[in-house]
Amino acid sequence: MTDRPEVPEVVAAVDIGGTKTAAALVTRSGQLVARASAPTPGVAGADAILQTAADLVLRLRAGSAAPIVRALGVGSAGVVDAATGFVLGATEVLRGWAGTDLRGSLASATGLPTAVVNDVHAHAIGEARRGAAHGAATVLFVGVGTGIGGSFVLDGAPLPGAHSAAGHIGHQPSPYAGKLTCTCGGTGHLEAVAAGPTLRAEYERRSGATVSDLRAVAALAADGDPFAVDTIVLGGTAVGSAVGGLVNVLDPHVVVVGGGVANLGELWWGALRAAVRREALPSLVGVTVVPASLGADAALVGAAEIAWETMT
Amino acid sequence: MTDRPEVPEVVAAVDIGGTKTAAALVTRSGQLVARASAPTPGVAGADAILQTAADLVLRLRAGSAAPIVRALGVGSAGVVDAATGFVLGATEVLRGWAGTDLRGSLASATGLPTAVVNDVHAHAIGEARRGAAHGAATVLFVGVGTGIGGSFVLDGAPLPGAHSAAGHIGHQPSPYAGKLTCTCGGTGHLEAVAAGPTLRAEYERRSGATVSDLRAVAALAADGDPFAVDTIVLGGTAVGSAVGGLVNVLDPHVVVVGGGVANLGELWWGALRAAVRREALPSLVGVTVVPASLGADAALVGAAEIAWETMT
Repeated sequence: MTDRPEVPEVVAAVDIGGTKTAAALVTRSGQLVARASAPTPGVAGADAILQTAADLVLRLRAGSAAPIVRALGVGSAGVVDAATGFVLGATEVLRGWAGTDLRGSLASATGLPTAVVNDVHAHAIGEARRGAAHGAATVLFVGVGTGIGGSFVLDGAPLPGAHSAAGHIGHQPSPYAGKLTCTCGGTGHLEAVAAGPTLRAEYERRSGATVSDLRAVAALAADGDPFAVDTIVLGGTAVGSAVGGLVNVLDPHVVVVGGGVANLGELWWGALRAAVRREALPSLVGVTVVPASLGADAALVGAAEIAWETMT
Repeated sequence: MTDRPEVPEVVAAVDIGGTKTAAALVTRSGQLVARASAPTPGVAGADAILQTAADLVLRLRAGSAAPIVRALGVGSAGVVDAATGFVLGATEVLRGWAGTDLRGSLASATGLPTAVVNDVHAHAIGEARRGAAHGAATVLFVGVGTGIGGSFVLDGAPLPGAHSAAGHIGHQPSPYAGKLTCTCGGTGHLEAVAAGPTLRAEYERRSGATVSDLRAVAALAADGDPFAVDTIVLGGTAVGSAVGGLVNVLDPHVVVVGGGVANLGELWWGALRAAVRREALPSLVGVTVVPASLGADAALVGAAEIAWETMT
């Protein structure tokens, strides 16, 4: 094999979400050197979703400045079995996605060694290895957005779980969720009160007003609306309470909190940190809790990491 | 080295608890072939506790049928740093225990290669490798007794945590604990309602009656006392709710529940299992939840396991 040493080697990374599929070429040091994205054709079914992902990779590879692409890493919404490469489960947002041979299909379509993982786990790998928790031996990652998910990362590898279902941090009982119904069908889970849509709904229940989204609630809180302040504090407190309880169980080196809701600002973060301190054992009260640092790129960075691992 | 092949090799195992120190000789297959025990001299301080443990080991070694003792494994109450061998923290039941060089002291006193671990982790290792979860890749162990502790065991090794403090399952927020004060100083933790003493106190609050211990509550429940029935169901439900939430986070292959409170019978277990099913995600609702099977020997079996590891 005759490499061209002046051309840096990269891997391709793909992040398949419910609405958007993002792709990038990523260096060994985690730098994104080219990007592409397309709407995820979720209603069109698995073949169309796979085709979109493969096309993005091929387009990046064909780019004029394209370096040598060595492997492909994929983070995908849904329950993904990283060991077999199959999608085990998904919501109807990705129609027919469950049962898909994600790894095999994209390896065939691109000709690249391919690794796959759930997108929240990809996000966590990115933050644990290249982001806010860089260098930490164990990391509890919590993503608070449309839902609340997470991942416990040991030595850079997310705990997959017996059914590839580990990390469902939003589906813990929360004293702050009362009898609220959860997206999973359960009752009183953290996600039922503290995810973006449910926290917005909580504001609407309390205030009697209607708002477009949670950012509007944050703006109202900044203007002094007491219902909005209480709602934001409730959300941060509920997440922090769950995080504090998990700190007592897992004693992680670092906790990273990301997702759109984590952008609500200091009111939310202050409530979260105070709740962690209230729940944590005296010896763990100083646990490091930091915001995610890679933003929307985290899952691509994480997907690139597992791509490099296919080559060792 | 001239071994005597007719004499089986064993390790010594010691379980240092708040009231009793137990010791045994244990074969490679986990059989306890000789036992000894003594009260733990907790008020006399660390040197006396160490001396008691060493004396038990030396006594077993001097026994007439004593086989060749290869190593020593120790499970101890308190926060134990398995990597350095030091005790990092302990309650006043073991006076002066924090700061003790547990591994170094017992290795010196016995002349044996020595490994040490927290006693709940030892218990979990025993159940994960030789007991109720034998052969499972990941195990969530929950011990419900005077307190509520646990351990998450991966490939036979307990997750230690960044501060050797992982496994404090009793110190999670529980919707069933209301504003009850926890032993840790926190509020509304699982242990504040569902450990043995706190559950007995719950019965007394509800009934206005006084009982000697939780077994008395179980007897009253068997006789149809509605306060007793409700209390036992509350205890099982609170533990099951926490277990179900952790199942969603860790997706363990098996959950093992042990400790004295787990002997309360089917009323408690039925409530626990129902609560796990209510909390668990649909894909995890069938998680295996089993009673511990090694009883009071579990920590000795686990301590023996880590003793054997000193020889590899």
